Amino acid sequence: MKIIVVGGTGTIGQAVVAELKQRHSVIIAGHRSGDVQVDITDTKSIEKMYQSIKEFDAVVSTTGKVHFGALTEMKDEQYQVGLKSKLMGQVNLVLLGIQYINNGGSFTLTSGILSHDPIRYGSSASMVNGALDSFVKAAAIEMPKNIRINIVSPTVVTESMGAYAEYFRGFESVSAKRVALAYSKSVEGAQTGQVYDVD
Amino acid sequence: MKIIVVGGTGTIGQAVVAELKQRHSVIIAGHRSGDVQVDITDTKSIEKMYQSIKEFDAVVSTTGKVHFGALTEMKDEQYQVGLKSKLMGQVNLVLLGIQYINNGGSFTLTSGILSHDPIRYGSSASMVNGALDSFVKAAAIEMPKNIRINIVSPTVVTESMGAYAEYFRGFESVSAKRVALAYSKSVEGAQTGQVYDVD
Repeated sequence: MKIIVVGGTGTIGQAVVAELKQRHSVIIAGHRSGDVQVDITDTKSIEKMYQSIKEFDAVVSTTGKVHFGALTEMKDEQYQVGLKSKLMGQVNLVLLGIQYINNGGSFTLTSGILSHDPIRYGSSASMVNGALDSFVKAAAIEMPKNIRINIVSPTVVTESMGAYAEYFRGFESVSAKRVALAYSKSVEGAQTGQVYDVD
Repeated sequence: MKIIVVGGTGTIGQAVVAELKQRHSVIIAGHRSGDVQVDITDTKSIEKMYQSIKEFDAVVSTTGKVHFGALTEMKDEQYQVGLKSKLMGQVNLVLLGIQYINNGGSFTLTSGILSHDPIRYGSSASMVNGALDSFVKAAAIEMPKNIRINIVSPTVVTESMGAYAEYFRGFESVSAKRVALAYSKSVEGAQTGQVYDVD
């Protein structure tokens, strides 16, 4: 298969690339690095990426920004960061990718455990993750061309615990390598509309 | 209690008002009608509403628009309708209401069954409902002033089945009167961070 990994230079993305490139042709899409460049908050940039790659069988997205901050200090504009990047950035990868992806292809997005296991400062991440999980369940039943769509919802990743440990006390972290297996299951399996919790 | 019901002129809103006004002072906020007017997509309009009412103990929201359309015809701008109105409209009622609401007050928002039981044309509604459910779980753990927050997630309402029946084949509808009980439980009970499914 020919697989685009958007965010393939990040912590989870690198592990996904390592897992998939053993058996497939992987194209890494990054904001500044990678094989191709894409800004997921810009629909024109997404279109340009797909047009440059032409044919492909799967899109994996392990990217998207969200603002963390105390609920009482968060305003509409702080929520817009996550809505524009992690939510609509990933959703637009799907909406625009439908016309380019091969029949029977798949999309695999990334949400996270905060949708149902919240932490302080995480209300925007919770919002965006919940939105993504529900979008994927809904989009799966309307996909044309036998396209599948799933999402991976990991807990905090061990490799990120240096920076985030104080926000995730009591959470059992998982290795990026173990999280990567869920993307393999989504891309190489046959299920659709699934939320793969990795925790 | 003094309770603001935003969307109190709608199908569910009227039933909520009928239930709550038996025991409480209810202020109906509508877009054009009601006791006060508010446009939830405009943060200045929300601020003005709260400033005009001053003291209150609870805010119930039974309002918010979403665009319905086939996945393959939906673009970023169609999703923005729901993100601006039903999602951030309700979230901004909370963010801005925190400073005005009395200690120990409560917010009760509205999502819907499509978060986890999707229908054709409903991917935006699913997205927004999932976002709201997760936001409420997260916001509950960071609320100041002993403020509570819950959300009601109803299936299709019997009173709306005339217009929507063909999209909801096989769904068992519930009366607006029964849905209204969940809002009463949220406002008059003591729980927080709950998603009350009414289906």
